[in-house]
Amino acid sequence: MKKQQGALLTSIKIDRSARKKIGVQLYMGLRDIILTGGLMAGDRLPATRTLAKEIQVSRTTVIDAIDRLVAEGLLESRVGAGTYVSEILENQRPVTPNVDTAQFTETRPRLAHNLTHATETYAPRSWLPHTTGAFVTALPALDAFPMAHWARLSARHLRGSRDDIMGYGQPKGLLQLRNAIATHLNASRGIRCHSEQIFITAGAQQAFSLIGSVLLNAGDQVWYENPGAAGARNAFLSRGAQMVPINVDKDGLIVSQGVQKSPHFRLAFVTPSHQQPLGHVMSLARRLELLDAANTAQAMIVEDDYDGDFYFGGQPHPPLKSIDTQSRVIYVGTFSKTLFPSLRLGFMLVPDGLIDTFDHLFASWISTAPTSVQSIVADFMDEGHFATHIRMMRRLYSARYDAMIDASKHMPDSFTLGETKSGFHTMGYLNKNADEQNLVRAAGENGVIVAPLNRYCLTPIAQKGLVLGFGSSTPEQINAGMKTLAKLVRHKI
Amino acid sequence: MKKQQGALLTSIKIDRSARKKIGVQLYMGLRDIILTGGLMAGDRLPATRTLAKEIQVSRTTVIDAIDRLVAEGLLESRVGAGTYVSEILENQRPVTPNVDTAQFTETRPRLAHNLTHATETYAPRSWLPHTTGAFVTALPALDAFPMAHWARLSARHLRGSRDDIMGYGQPKGLLQLRNAIATHLNASRGIRCHSEQIFITAGAQQAFSLIGSVLLNAGDQVWYENPGAAGARNAFLSRGAQMVPINVDKDGLIVSQGVQKSPHFRLAFVTPSHQQPLGHVMSLARRLELLDAANTAQAMIVEDDYDGDFYFGGQPHPPLKSIDTQSRVIYVGTFSKTLFPSLRLGFMLVPDGLIDTFDHLFASWISTAPTSVQSIVADFMDEGHFATHIRMMRRLYSARYDAMIDASKHMPDSFTLGETKSGFHTMGYLNKNADEQNLVRAAGENGVIVAPLNRYCLTPIAQKGLVLGFGSSTPEQINAGMKTLAKLVRHKI
Ligand SMILES: Cc1ncc(COP(=O)(O)O)c(C=O)c1O
Ligand SMILES: Cc1ncc(COP(=O)(O)O)c(C=O)c1O
Repeated sequence: MKKQQGALLTSIKIDRSARKKIGVQLYMGLRDIILTGGLMAGDRLPATRTLAKEIQVSRTTVIDAIDRLVAEGLLESRVGAGTYVSEILENQRPVTPNVDTAQFTETRPRLAHNLTHATETYAPRSWLPHTTGAFVTALPALDAFPMAHWARLSARHLRGSRDDIMGYGQPKGLLQLRNAIATHLNASRGIRCHSEQIFITAGAQQAFSLIGSVLLNAGDQVWYENPGAAGARNAFLSRGAQMVPINVDKDGLIVSQGVQKSPHFRLAFVTPSHQQPLGHVMSLARRLELLDAANTAQAMIVEDDYDGDFYFGGQPHPPLKSIDTQSRVIYVGTFSKTLFPSLRLGFMLVPDGLIDTFDHLFASWISTAPTSVQSIVADFMDEGHFATHIRMMRRLYSARYDAMIDASKHMPDSFTLGETKSGFHTMGYLNKNADEQNLVRAAGENGVIVAPLNRYCLTPIAQKGLVLGFGSSTPEQINAGMKTLAKLVRHKI
Repeated sequence: MKKQQGALLTSIKIDRSARKKIGVQLYMGLRDIILTGGLMAGDRLPATRTLAKEIQVSRTTVIDAIDRLVAEGLLESRVGAGTYVSEILENQRPVTPNVDTAQFTETRPRLAHNLTHATETYAPRSWLPHTTGAFVTALPALDAFPMAHWARLSARHLRGSRDDIMGYGQPKGLLQLRNAIATHLNASRGIRCHSEQIFITAGAQQAFSLIGSVLLNAGDQVWYENPGAAGARNAFLSRGAQMVPINVDKDGLIVSQGVQKSPHFRLAFVTPSHQQPLGHVMSLARRLELLDAANTAQAMIVEDDYDGDFYFGGQPHPPLKSIDTQSRVIYVGTFSKTLFPSLRLGFMLVPDGLIDTFDHLFASWISTAPTSVQSIVADFMDEGHFATHIRMMRRLYSARYDAMIDASKHMPDSFTLGETKSGFHTMGYLNKNADEQNLVRAAGENGVIVAPLNRYCLTPIAQKGLVLGFGSSTPEQINAGMKTLAKLVRHKI
């Protein structure tokens, strides 16, 4: 037994270069051995001196680790008699009735009717972007984020009153944050609104799925930009909605095509400030046409203003919502671009006529974001860091887009860089006979991440291209990435 | 103009006792005035000396605030000529086309078919508990939470690699956290499981609504404990499910009643470790009966183990999941009780046969919790603070329950304190002709929060009572609260 324990204990691996303290590593190692039955109730631990020698750590470190395990109740110290694995542990382990594990079988439960169909039609997505570099889309300039301010506000939040920071938060979201968002929308986006219209969500993604569950019946028709964003599309599909792909041109969604294909549509999804993924700004004429069509059909419109804060082409267009005289538009915003995606924080602005409905849902069964995240973001906005950061990022993205233009000189003539005046991604158009899929794979193998245009399409389009993000890459990375891409385009096309 | 500006600027209110620094308050006040048009583009600000005098703050404070507004672009400094409201501000405000605001009308959009019916049937809930005291339910001992450890881990998290902490998180939740939960369930709850079965959710609440959307069609029958929890019930109702209320006795859900009322049920919702709200532990016989019934009907079971970690009555019962030989049980857990509710963090453990389905949903359109919250909780678990905290809370809740028993001596004979051996709420049973509603209101007016038993019922039951939380109150608060309640019960019954 002695020997086996010795072997067990030296199996604790201490990584001296790790971020975790050695004492913590030792404590965790010991605990794992106890919990997994490597040491049993009543077993005596070697003397601290012996342990320290075997694992090659200081004796104080050993004593600290053991003290914690004693506090936790896994070990017991008997005065003058050493340290033992606690008997309590065995007593408090739930007694599982005698179940023959060989009998455990796997049954595949029946799923809800619509679900199987819906899941088959989802746009393919896996882990969303989480590593910066050329030409990852959707990631803002993580390197330029004012983390010191953030950390300070985060620490301050935890010094707040316990009731405020730990109890259940306000059902539709923290009032301070809803006020800050309403102020931002009024001041910088030209939308007249008040905070009762605003509902905090777990990213824009949750807003889309809530809107779907409130407005859509199975079979309802949804006008959807083609190409268009994947996330909202999947959320609507999960409701059993019928997606009607509507083409986009340089003026945005071709409304006349929608009216022709699906006059009785229930919902339209658009990205007017910066068409996802093509980058066009929807013209005023089209906007008015769309509002008119929605009015005629008594349909609603989802305006996804995911990166509208980052215009760098002079005067921005106002959001569709600001000219929505008939309350047809639900406006959706996200902090994934203005701050960062791991916050999972977004919001929707609903017409007054929908406030009651959403209030009822949010109070009854919807979880919104953690108070900590909401409160830190609200302070960040109230203290002006948000406005300052957006202003700086506008300049930064403008510069990074210039780097894109500059680096595109490496590219052959068969490649055309799309124009954009906002956000942090643009198109790279290819020849009609280019093999997108192949190019994407080859680029990936060379460390350059690009997304194929056709991934964004509900029905295939003739145009070939790559969606290129430039938000999270330095000009050097952009230049190097473009060089790599140039080689591949030359050889594959 | 000078005068008006003076008036405007002195309208900035500096609250010297506030948590926000004076400089920040000044900056925010100035910014509001500029953004709301109190100062227009081109307006000159008074000299810093004048400002400092008028607002009665130091000149450095004024200069700091102005510097920030300059950095943000709202003000411009012209050397030797003072500070002006920036022209850029006007240029960058979106130009809203001429819209006659009088034309804005409110249309009430049509809602999805099932929704109107569903919302009418929701159990009434408003802002969930967020202020500690006798006898608030659902709040753990916020006063005893080791906030110093938490703050340290929170600060350390923000020093991590930016890609890791800021990019989109792993779709089904942080692997480190899923591993920590699997370890906890294996070691302390006797459930054999692996981390791929675990999906991180925004509280147990999100788990319930996801389970509903995956398994339930409109009209499907759900066995539901009566009385039972409100949150899950609303989530299932929102899918158009038909709730079948099944009574509970001291052995838990009366399975035979379920089989008789609804043999073709699709889902059963139970709280076997600690019936919500009555507090009974489901007997082993009933557990086996329920598993059998589910097998026969090919139905699934949701086990909500919301406070099973806090047993203080000797050996705990193992969760239903640990004897689920036919993969009928989806196990749902929450950090709202073990840590605190504002985290909005929970998880579900699904049978292997459902992993693919949920993997697909989580990757396609479901937002999970912010990385920060997941990572801090994972570290908290890995470093053993979680186990230590639970162990301490078991003792604390046991002591607070003893205080309940002790304080119940104040109560008249018409009141019976329910027995419980886990969690941090219990029943106070009343005479059959007691007026719950009236008592709850009167108690509230006297600063004592109690919940009426009938709020938990799908169909009314004869039993009258109050649900009494004791987790977040000190023994003194418990004693005082019981005295108040005693007076009211004496006079109202
Ligand atoms: C079109 C569009 N809308 C919204 C978002 C943001 O979604 P979320 O707020 O859920 O991160 C994205 C992310 O890339 C997007 O591409
Ligand atoms: C029965 C039951 N389940 C679960 C929870 C926790 O829900 P959540 O994790 O969404 O906070 C509660 C909260 O009080 C509850 O009463």
